[in-house]
Amino acid sequence: MKILILGGDGYLGWPTAMNLSAAGHDVVVVDNYLRRNITQEESVEPLYALPNLIERCKIWKASSGHDVVPYIGDLQGWAFVETVFKSFTPDAIVHYAEQPSAPYSTKDHNTARLTLTNNLLTTFNVLQAMHMFCPNAHLVKLGTMGEYGTPNIDIEEGWLNVTHNDRTDKFLFPRQAGSLYHTTKIQDTDMIWLHVRMWGLRVTDLMQGLVYGEYTDENQGDDRLLPHFAYDEMFGTVLNRFIVQAIAGYPLTIYGKGGQTRGFLNIKDTLQCIKLSIENPADQGELRIFNQFTETFSVNELAALIQSAAKVVDVDVEVQTMENPRKELEEHYYNPAHTDLVEMGLKPNFLTEDVLVELLQLTLRHKDNIVQDRIFRNVKWA
Amino acid sequence: MKILILGGDGYLGWPTAMNLSAAGHDVVVVDNYLRRNITQEESVEPLYALPNLIERCKIWKASSGHDVVPYIGDLQGWAFVETVFKSFTPDAIVHYAEQPSAPYSTKDHNTARLTLTNNLLTTFNVLQAMHMFCPNAHLVKLGTMGEYGTPNIDIEEGWLNVTHNDRTDKFLFPRQAGSLYHTTKIQDTDMIWLHVRMWGLRVTDLMQGLVYGEYTDENQGDDRLLPHFAYDEMFGTVLNRFIVQAIAGYPLTIYGKGGQTRGFLNIKDTLQCIKLSIENPADQGELRIFNQFTETFSVNELAALIQSAAKVVDVDVEVQTMENPRKELEEHYYNPAHTDLVEMGLKPNFLTEDVLVELLQLTLRHKDNIVQDRIFRNVKWA
Repeated sequence: MKILILGGDGYLGWPTAMNLSAAGHDVVVVDNYLRRNITQEESVEPLYALPNLIERCKIWKASSGHDVVPYIGDLQGWAFVETVFKSFTPDAIVHYAEQPSAPYSTKDHNTARLTLTNNLLTTFNVLQAMHMFCPNAHLVKLGTMGEYGTPNIDIEEGWLNVTHNDRTDKFLFPRQAGSLYHTTKIQDTDMIWLHVRMWGLRVTDLMQGLVYGEYTDENQGDDRLLPHFAYDEMFGTVLNRFIVQAIAGYPLTIYGKGGQTRGFLNIKDTLQCIKLSIENPADQGELRIFNQFTETFSVNELAALIQSAAKVVDVDVEVQTMENPRKELEEHYYNPAHTDLVEMGLKPNFLTEDVLVELLQLTLRHKDNIVQDRIFRNVKWA
Repeated sequence: MKILILGGDGYLGWPTAMNLSAAGHDVVVVDNYLRRNITQEESVEPLYALPNLIERCKIWKASSGHDVVPYIGDLQGWAFVETVFKSFTPDAIVHYAEQPSAPYSTKDHNTARLTLTNNLLTTFNVLQAMHMFCPNAHLVKLGTMGEYGTPNIDIEEGWLNVTHNDRTDKFLFPRQAGSLYHTTKIQDTDMIWLHVRMWGLRVTDLMQGLVYGEYTDENQGDDRLLPHFAYDEMFGTVLNRFIVQAIAGYPLTIYGKGGQTRGFLNIKDTLQCIKLSIENPADQGELRIFNQFTETFSVNELAALIQSAAKVVDVDVEVQTMENPRKELEEHYYNPAHTDLVEMGLKPNFLTEDVLVELLQLTLRHKDNIVQDRIFRNVKWA
């Protein structure tokens, strides 16, 4: 299958590119290094430096024999989009090409505007390009569980049947996010749903939880093929921040009461979900939505797991509470469905102690790179 | 009160400016002539030409003694937004500054992109400016009933209590629109709701129906103060198109079965609703939503009313059916609530025969200006 991966230099884009090319697909990756440029501007580079995308394609070719073809450019520009789609007509498009940091998106006027325009114009151009160049292609779009927020009702997979005054209709599940980044994903969903109905496009929208892990089947033994490891307050997940805090000898910092509960999944399961979605595409004119995570943890639970795993590598960790810089509920109901991908064949890799120890050991090897003031900089979300 | 009207040259912006300045408010209007420029580019100018905004402010001053201060510029640009808000700190902002045509928004790649960027960046900049320059100001934002689409359940005023698996939460009423223009208004709502929660802004979002009428208390006797009269397929409502088709001797063209039902209101009632909203503002941190229309009509009902009113001005009109260029349901349930504004004091001006005759007579006076191929050009919505 011919597969186009947008945001192919990213934390998930690059592992996806290797994984799908190893499976025999014809893979083209596109990236404009937005994430690398932002982390440099904000002085929050990842734990270890990585070769650029063109270099990584060469390294992967040398080690695996598989071609991954890179295009470097900005998908907000229509001329570049045309260049890509005129030279490669995909059967499937995996769209990761968005500014993914919630704190960055609400940092100031310019970062907010960049997030809004980048995310919406990129998605807009992808939809336009599908309509013009490959109307039968299948778009696999990365959404986020954060689109739903933390409602007081069970979260279904994308849709909800609503009965009101004895009449019933089916709607997109109500979405209500806590940051501009998450809101751009809602706006994407609105726009995608319009174009699915208007043009009969086929789309799978994956409402993904927080992804952890660095190792996949394709990058064992060559650290140059690892994904980025972000541990800063802007781009690092709470799990990565806790891992690095543990190794750096910092207490784990819990925002507020620590009851904030989210869905998590292993990076290996992201790869499984993408492959399952591509190999079992949505129908023409269908917007199919899956909730993509395998377990839920509260921040308190996560801190306890990492505190315990740290003992295995002989590290004693304290847990501390601090004022929450985010506007979010610190205690809330959270019961999201996540059975559809399992029914399609997903075999979950859970967050075991082994997985945490592996991440702690990787971080130990790069301990000298840790810049402590990247971990916590107190960016207010509002 | 100091009131800033964005899109002050538009069909509703200009009548609102006169109305609020006549009521003693201090009014500044902003416009970049986007609508005038587009109608010229697309060769779909309104039925009669009007003086520019600066000239209209002078004419209004001469006839009423009231000052309305015009700023000409594009609210997508932050430097211009800063200039406006640094020189005038409003108590209320009326935001009409959006590309309002559904057919234009889906005409081609460029018109779609213009609609998306103009509407979202303008709303984004307004929210940013409120946060920075006037966090206590009240934003009165024009939404559209089209955000809801035509669901199979009763449409409430903006919000819906949803019970699911024995638990309940309150959400934005599900929105699902039929064009990119209407979808940008949904995306606006998502973005506004985020910033109301994040920054405690006060916002009234008016889900407006189709507005008709040219005459208000302020423009009687001076045609240079009338609002635009659009009768083309892109910017004209179905009511205006029917009026002009009647006078031009065309049959009234009904798309498909003609059961498409929408909410309508008189332009005088738009002015009442804006004034009521401004004088009874939303609370800090509240997103208040009203459905702003007074009656619903199907396209078939509207055609019959105009056919009947045309007899008063001695015009015989036929009604014809044609293939629907839009993707929309031609027969559907439609029961939207619209009591909140009436409870606040709105006294509706209904669509009487007198109102239609007045519009037919106005059109008769400008009959020589009618360019017949503007009325129907078969722009596909998809």
